[in-house]
Amino acid sequence: MPAASDPAETYSYLGPAGTFTEAALKQVEAAAGKAWRPVNNVGEALDDVTSGRSTAAMIAIENSIEGGVSATQDALATIPDLRIVGEYLVPVNFVLVARPGTALADVKVVNAHPVAYAQTHRWLERELPSHGHIPATSNVAAAASLLDGSTADAAVAPPGITDHHDLTVLAEGIGDNPNAVTRFVLVSRTTALPEPTGADKTSIIAELPDDTAGRLLEMLEQFATRGVNMSLLESRPIGDALGRYRFVIDLDGHILDERVADALLGLKRFSPNVVFLGSYPRADKQAITVTNRYSNESFVEARDWLRGLIAGEPSAH
Amino acid sequence: MPAASDPAETYSYLGPAGTFTEAALKQVEAAAGKAWRPVNNVGEALDDVTSGRSTAAMIAIENSIEGGVSATQDALATIPDLRIVGEYLVPVNFVLVARPGTALADVKVVNAHPVAYAQTHRWLERELPSHGHIPATSNVAAAASLLDGSTADAAVAPPGITDHHDLTVLAEGIGDNPNAVTRFVLVSRTTALPEPTGADKTSIIAELPDDTAGRLLEMLEQFATRGVNMSLLESRPIGDALGRYRFVIDLDGHILDERVADALLGLKRFSPNVVFLGSYPRADKQAITVTNRYSNESFVEARDWLRGLIAGEPSAH
Amino acid sequence: MPAASDPAETYSYLGPAGTFTEAALKQVEAAAGKAWRPVNNVGEALDDVTSGRSTAAMIAIENSIEGGVSATQDALATIPDLRIVGEYLVPVNFVLVARPGTALADVKVVNAHPVAYAQTHRWLERELPSHGHIPATSNVAAAASLLDGSTADAAVAPPGITDHHDLTVLAEGIGDNPNAVTRFVLVSRTTALPEPTGADKTSIIAELPDDTAGRLLEMLEQFATRGVNMSLLESRPIGDALGRYRFVIDLDGHILDERVADALLGLKRFSPNVVFLGSYPRADKQAITVTNRYSNESFVEARDWLRGLIAGEPSAH
Amino acid sequence: MPAASDPAETYSYLGPAGTFTEAALKQVEAAAGKAWRPVNNVGEALDDVTSGRSTAAMIAIENSIEGGVSATQDALATIPDLRIVGEYLVPVNFVLVARPGTALADVKVVNAHPVAYAQTHRWLERELPSHGHIPATSNVAAAASLLDGSTADAAVAPPGITDHHDLTVLAEGIGDNPNAVTRFVLVSRTTALPEPTGADKTSIIAELPDDTAGRLLEMLEQFATRGVNMSLLESRPIGDALGRYRFVIDLDGHILDERVADALLGLKRFSPNVVFLGSYPRADKQAITVTNRYSNESFVEARDWLRGLIAGEPSAH
Repeated sequence: MPAASDPAETYSYLGPAGTFTEAALKQVEAAAGKAWRPVNNVGEALDDVTSGRSTAAMIAIENSIEGGVSATQDALATIPDLRIVGEYLVPVNFVLVARPGTALADVKVVNAHPVAYAQTHRWLERELPSHGHIPATSNVAAAASLLDGSTADAAVAPPGITDHHDLTVLAEGIGDNPNAVTRFVLVSRTTALPEPTGADKTSIIAELPDDTAGRLLEMLEQFATRGVNMSLLESRPIGDALGRYRFVIDLDGHILDERVADALLGLKRFSPNVVFLGSYPRADKQAITVTNRYSNESFVEARDWLRGLIAGEPSAH
Repeated sequence: MPAASDPAETYSYLGPAGTFTEAALKQVEAAAGKAWRPVNNVGEALDDVTSGRSTAAMIAIENSIEGGVSATQDALATIPDLRIVGEYLVPVNFVLVARPGTALADVKVVNAHPVAYAQTHRWLERELPSHGHIPATSNVAAAASLLDGSTADAAVAPPGITDHHDLTVLAEGIGDNPNAVTRFVLVSRTTALPEPTGADKTSIIAELPDDTAGRLLEMLEQFATRGVNMSLLESRPIGDALGRYRFVIDLDGHILDERVADALLGLKRFSPNVVFLGSYPRADKQAITVTNRYSNESFVEARDWLRGLIAGEPSAH
Repeated sequence: MPAASDPAETYSYLGPAGTFTEAALKQVEAAAGKAWRPVNNVGEALDDVTSGRSTAAMIAIENSIEGGVSATQDALATIPDLRIVGEYLVPVNFVLVARPGTALADVKVVNAHPVAYAQTHRWLERELPSHGHIPATSNVAAAASLLDGSTADAAVAPPGITDHHDLTVLAEGIGDNPNAVTRFVLVSRTTALPEPTGADKTSIIAELPDDTAGRLLEMLEQFATRGVNMSLLESRPIGDALGRYRFVIDLDGHILDERVADALLGLKRFSPNVVFLGSYPRADKQAITVTNRYSNESFVEARDWLRGLIAGEPSAH
Repeated sequence: MPAASDPAETYSYLGPAGTFTEAALKQVEAAAGKAWRPVNNVGEALDDVTSGRSTAAMIAIENSIEGGVSATQDALATIPDLRIVGEYLVPVNFVLVARPGTALADVKVVNAHPVAYAQTHRWLERELPSHGHIPATSNVAAAASLLDGSTADAAVAPPGITDHHDLTVLAEGIGDNPNAVTRFVLVSRTTALPEPTGADKTSIIAELPDDTAGRLLEMLEQFATRGVNMSLLESRPIGDALGRYRFVIDLDGHILDERVADALLGLKRFSPNVVFLGSYPRADKQAITVTNRYSNESFVEARDWLRGLIAGEPSAH
């Protein structure tokens, strides 16, 4: 984490050092050796990007237990000219840390970010049945507070926190769900698209044209008739009135895949407000396969056929 | 009907003079003053077109009582390089004719084409309850036979038959359904498309990819998701085995309407065998209106948007 | 074919003896040894049934080459209180017959029903390139006419015609498509349903509520959402105006199969006019299999669950 | 709020007195004059209900700005034998309170629950641009902390907090969105259903049978083919793996409405896991209207028709 200040070379992330977001950023090859800028929340991270302070920001978008990160989804829906350029998965494990010299039996009050607290609740109930909880603004802050006058005896924190703070690990792997994982996205200003890799994802946010029954079905048929699978569909309130939603959608495939492009055209005609968030390689690198009917060749052949018909060439039988 | 023999100026039709098909051909402005070639059936008419003997052929495709004309539908499905270039409606009325001197009370045997007989059956049963029926190969042949030694006393024929034959009309308007109408199409070799008029029809024939449940639904969704209405859907046996069908479909709109072109692309990718029969002005001249979502502008805007996304232009919100 | 005249024991069929319809009736075990009543057309056959003159009538409903038999479909759509109780397949083969002493080389004029003529056209063109055609009202009439003063030299007829008429077979298997088959149905008055066999078919005729775009799709979704496959969909003009159709539909399964009953309920609510024509064993005896989701058990379980919810029983998780 | 301890007469709510949840509970007529039991979170509230300590619990389920309340949705999805019996809307307004004697100009640090902080962020940025933020576990706790040694100078709290605490209001209506509203539900153990009122809502949670493309569409068609509108569709992670979701759905109508019951049957057959959360009067009292096709009468008529068909009664035309 050098202190270089070239914005084209700076990456923002939810800091401080030691967060899960930092762990996600460590997976980005292009970010190695560049300036890393810790920020306090998603708003600041995206502000760095839109203002040009940073070339990109790493932000959490979904957790396998908690679901979509509302702040991220709402920010991506409303801040213009952003593009997701990569996706990263970070296993969510927690440790219980304390000031050196504290034993597990001494712990009466635990400092923890509410989400981390929820995800370690069963362990804490079992091992520390009568503990109290002090909420923290972040996982790292929970740990740091122990060295900063907090009345808590221990904190729930990400593994590796001890690289940054002089704390002792009282227990490891205290998360209730050992498979918990958080999905992060790297966001930059609108830019050239990442090349299709065959294992890509396309993220969009779209509104329905009105409240007529069946509108959502109609929107989803835009994908289904082109053989485009959805890996995520979440609704978020638009915010102006109860009962009005926008939809956060992840599609299998890249905008440069013909079927995805065609589905986006159909969606654009249907929806009064579509935000294209980007096409980028999937973190799980799972290749997308489609039947021949939805292959690029099939789209090209159909266009050639149509051109021939319009030109008055004999129609093939 | 001059005897000119320039193929580019010859029109084939189900003859002889006096048929409903001739009445349809009389509606074609471009055919006025050109050579008209009477033929015996749909096969001969289309053969004239494919061989170049005629520039176009007028053939019946549907009757409001009897339904689709199978011979026409099957011929269009299997003969390559044909295009429907126009549609014409002819009211189907019948007269009962006889040799001069015959009175209605004298009629014991009626000569009639089976279809005409079926469509005048109620009148004949009521007015001539004990009549016999001799089938004819065509409506005009039924009338002509009276002057050619037929044992019949009267014939069911199209109005105007008396322009061509020395016969007396015993009764007019004897059809059971006064609104009966036959739809004809003018067919030529593959050629330049008629210009869109805003009141057009597009005819296609398509097969399903396989017998999986729901395939027909999937095909129809190709039209529905583009806002393209079907005015006709008929199934015809492919002929190789019981239970295998092709579908004869009329769509509202012209192949040069964006939504129709897009639906045809979707259909082409879906179906192993699509025959484009043509886009041409509707006989009823009823304009096709669509919501803005399916307008040409909407398609153009969506493409511009997609191009911008791919080029890395900022996405509009 | 005894002369018994008990209506409950009489079967009507398109006669005379020797027709394909008679061949279909021969497949009906219950009809063996009962009175068989030859009639002239579908109308007469169904009239025998509705009037009580016959217990049932055998009528052709579809041909693998020619498609649906319009007269049958329209009669079933409009005559009340009929039920299809069985389905039978008859291979359609033709022979060329002549008066004894006639050789193939002598044949100049051929008597044939138009449909039979169309199905032997290629053979006739090849073997008798300059023959003339006299249309007959039925296949058997074509053959019989040879012994009744017809000017024709030969006739196209069903195999076995020589059981009934003193004629010589000039050529066998002259049909253009050796796999051609006609599907017949046995029709009775509304009666107890045949038991489900696991290999059943349900026939219905339904109209759409109006001409709004997408209505057909909506109707087909009633079947699709219950996992009910269609083996036939044909449109027939209602007859009052061009462009108004009813749909003739065959569904896989029996009305006593839960999924079929449920689809019919959905259809009944949707369509202003549904005619239930019957549930009966398929001629091809092919068992219908469905995923567990559409099994009878699945329907029963769902109803039990719903009853429990309404009764205020704890909902299972 | 008497201290009566009859569980059948006790209502749990997110306390302490002064919360928005208490404001929701004040809308419940049946709760007037009964024991009200303040709890710390959704888990405790529902635990009171399942254990029988309380007759019902009031819990927040959705906010017009923040979206669905994940903890509530996840608890309802996994705790058996709960039923929503009523829905209540509470406008979300905030005041800024301080210890008596504090002026707005004195405020340097604000105590606020993170959600309340997010919803008043614009006002705080504008009026107190350099303020610091201390997170609280609840809105009332934020206010109470001021009297309990907090280093904060002011707190964001619900209106009416001054009924319970000796605090001064520095500013009213500081929420960024004046139309913000929170939707609460009253939850009891499985019990008799509330009567249909014509303006009802049915809440369910369902899983898809597998990850096959188009499964969500298939599920939504269960509602669409019965004319049942969705007013809410939210996805929540099942929690076992990234990419696996359950869907929280609100339907227009009551389980005793035929169309809703039928849609639930279809859903039950489709989904491996459906949780029925209840049918109850809508807070907005907006009557649900459907076309005749989806009326109770239409369902009853269709069943009568089917019964007649199966009984062998003549089918109506």
